[in-house]
Amino acid sequence: MAQKPSIPKGTRDFSPAEVNRRNYIFDTIKKHFQIFGFQPIETPSFENSETLMGKYGDEGDRLIFKILNSGDFLNKVDDATYGSKNSTSLTPKITEKALRYDLTVPFARYVVMHQNEIDFPFKRYQIQPVWRADRPQKGRFREFYQCDADVVGANSLLQEVELIQLYDAVFTDLKLEGVHIKLNNRKVLAGIAEIIGAKQLLMDFTVALDKLDKIGEEGVKKEMLEKGISEESIAKAAPLFSLSGNSEEQLNILKGLLQDSEQGLEGIEELESIMRTINEIGLQSAQLSLDVTLARGLNYYTGTILEVGSPEGVKMGSIGGGGRYDDLTGIFGLKNVSGVGISFGLDRIYLVLEELDLFPPTLEQSIQVLCLNFGEKEALASLKLIGTLRNSGIKADLYPTKAKIQKQFKYANNRNVPYVILLGEKELKENTFVVKNMSSGEQETFSLESGKDFGASL
Amino acid sequence: MAQKPSIPKGTRDFSPAEVNRRNYIFDTIKKHFQIFGFQPIETPSFENSETLMGKYGDEGDRLIFKILNSGDFLNKVDDATYGSKNSTSLTPKITEKALRYDLTVPFARYVVMHQNEIDFPFKRYQIQPVWRADRPQKGRFREFYQCDADVVGANSLLQEVELIQLYDAVFTDLKLEGVHIKLNNRKVLAGIAEIIGAKQLLMDFTVALDKLDKIGEEGVKKEMLEKGISEESIAKAAPLFSLSGNSEEQLNILKGLLQDSEQGLEGIEELESIMRTINEIGLQSAQLSLDVTLARGLNYYTGTILEVGSPEGVKMGSIGGGGRYDDLTGIFGLKNVSGVGISFGLDRIYLVLEELDLFPPTLEQSIQVLCLNFGEKEALASLKLIGTLRNSGIKADLYPTKAKIQKQFKYANNRNVPYVILLGEKELKENTFVVKNMSSGEQETFSLESGKDFGASL
Repeated sequence: MAQKPSIPKGTRDFSPAEVNRRNYIFDTIKKHFQIFGFQPIETPSFENSETLMGKYGDEGDRLIFKILNSGDFLNKVDDATYGSKNSTSLTPKITEKALRYDLTVPFARYVVMHQNEIDFPFKRYQIQPVWRADRPQKGRFREFYQCDADVVGANSLLQEVELIQLYDAVFTDLKLEGVHIKLNNRKVLAGIAEIIGAKQLLMDFTVALDKLDKIGEEGVKKEMLEKGISEESIAKAAPLFSLSGNSEEQLNILKGLLQDSEQGLEGIEELESIMRTINEIGLQSAQLSLDVTLARGLNYYTGTILEVGSPEGVKMGSIGGGGRYDDLTGIFGLKNVSGVGISFGLDRIYLVLEELDLFPPTLEQSIQVLCLNFGEKEALASLKLIGTLRNSGIKADLYPTKAKIQKQFKYANNRNVPYVILLGEKELKENTFVVKNMSSGEQETFSLESGKDFGASL
Repeated sequence: MAQKPSIPKGTRDFSPAEVNRRNYIFDTIKKHFQIFGFQPIETPSFENSETLMGKYGDEGDRLIFKILNSGDFLNKVDDATYGSKNSTSLTPKITEKALRYDLTVPFARYVVMHQNEIDFPFKRYQIQPVWRADRPQKGRFREFYQCDADVVGANSLLQEVELIQLYDAVFTDLKLEGVHIKLNNRKVLAGIAEIIGAKQLLMDFTVALDKLDKIGEEGVKKEMLEKGISEESIAKAAPLFSLSGNSEEQLNILKGLLQDSEQGLEGIEELESIMRTINEIGLQSAQLSLDVTLARGLNYYTGTILEVGSPEGVKMGSIGGGGRYDDLTGIFGLKNVSGVGISFGLDRIYLVLEELDLFPPTLEQSIQVLCLNFGEKEALASLKLIGTLRNSGIKADLYPTKAKIQKQFKYANNRNVPYVILLGEKELKENTFVVKNMSSGEQETFSLESGKDFGASL
């Protein structure tokens, strides 16, 4: 009995239509990565386990897919370890490789290993799949692509400016206008924690503050108290509850609040510099604004924090994010290499473009011309004509067998072919071919010699 | 202590220059796949183990990378199995997923699972990595890309003709002229085995026959005898030793030899039909010839067998191959689906293009223009100019910090930048910028307003 095939949960097959739409997004992102001077690298799908383990916290370690050693993998396992029948202690004895969990740690490893070949500042992009043994759910997969652009080896805030421009360029090109780029700075958050004297409660504080629009000042205060933030701390942070107006006004309120925090003021200066420059240069379609509740990747970023939200009216989490981290490569022994980078969320961008019907209709056309098949002699002439069209870069195809014409037309319809060529016995005799426009139904006759001209007219 | 990083043996990091060269090959292949009407699909990197196991023979099963189950994977292992401490019997208890070993079995699985959405004949291409736990050696890796194009669901020999044209189109576009496409047919080989009465020795027979040019008729006969092929069989096959002349003459000799083998004659007819059609249509730069010793994938193909050899003078194994298989999807329960396909050997094509210096020099240019950085005000003006250039699709970059000009020029040199823009204090005051051609050393001054014109001149 043949088995009924299936694929592992959390993974996906992509049909031609899906691959074409995904590639449209990838290609657009890639184009702007290159225009902005980023260079591609690729790293292996699996790394040595010690490269990945311990880099993403305990939860991350659990979610990393491990690859079983090949051959007689139990041969090297000592009896004591084996006897305990403990999955956790056996794992490092029978696996030494693991699937990539993100692109950042492999990139840090790459920079350290290749530091002598790299010209710093190094602007690299990387578009490759990553794997996580997460519980699959709607929109969360065990295999998915990350699209990252990072600059390492220089400290200028102009890099943040460029990354904001890059987001703007990509989303404008995708016709996804009106995305919201939210900006914050880890140092401002640190300053707030300093002021309220509740460093370890910063995350709870920002999560509560983020709900201001929804549950109002009283609601936020109530949640903060429940989380163990003192009345006194909340009182000190009071100016944050009245943060309003444009980014400039908000920055002024923050400046007052953080006047005694050196780090906080440094963060504000960085935010001001970035916003001022962007104001000078302008953006095409994205909107940039300060969001002091943005606390993404708190333990990771050390300066700027960025996040991109969908245009208004689309319910979707962030479709991109990033920030600056002071010591990317320290874990692998190369100190003081600052980095800043952004990431595009392919799967979510896909869903947003689908919802807003923004995929170009031409993506649906797998071929531009289909030649029907009327038999051996006609097919040979058709192949020659198709050769001419293909040499001009036209996507053209011949129906491979002399099936019923109705069946061949049905195939053309299913493949969304805009033009069908009929080259039957009569046409062959007259040295012509007939082109049928599948949407208008109109037919036109060409001489076989003018195949190239017909191709040029497409 | 930070660990010294490394990557697993048999895997590779790809630098920007390498990714660009690889993408040049991928993009060229992809372009022609599409022009020939093939549509892309993608399948998950790992499949359920039962999808892959048993499909590639015992050796294949050993070379498949298995993924350790997540969580407490020993929990479900019964004590008896565990107690035997046997790697082979433990493996299926602690792994249920495995990395893709090739693209053909996942494709067969895809066709069966999606048969109701697919319009047959289905022309699909797939370019994705595969993984094999092979012993790494020069030119053999544990992770490598396969580039496959297959047609399923139709029997016409015109598909073989198209695949030969496709090879010709790709290699001509890559400027790799003079590749040799060798053609054979499994049915001819079966006919020969029938005639010599040594079916199970067919592989040994063809391997020995293949050495005719090197070791001569006597050498070949000696090797055949050593392999256990009888004198009588060898005598019957005698006409094969004098196979010479063009393909047509060779086919005539074969026709005489195989006159009593129905299957053999069928194979000859197929070869004749394909060669006749290709002769009619012509190829751009590839050469097609019959090679009756071509026995690639003997247990797999059922009709046409194809292999592409490098142009003369380049020492490299085959750079592509393929053939027809009658029952691709039978293993997953869908009977009588015929397929024919070809594959491009990316890594070897890369080495050949490198040896012959056929990569376009423009691949070395990661950016077209670098703006030097003379300080904050100048950088802001530069960013605006760069924005104009980038909007016209020019790859342009700003050096991120006000480093010493010598250092910035060195960076431009290392990145092979053809044009450097100088926009310093003086230029800013005069509303101009200076372009330095890095190969000629010539400098030209433009007004800031004419940034777009300069971009258009690139």
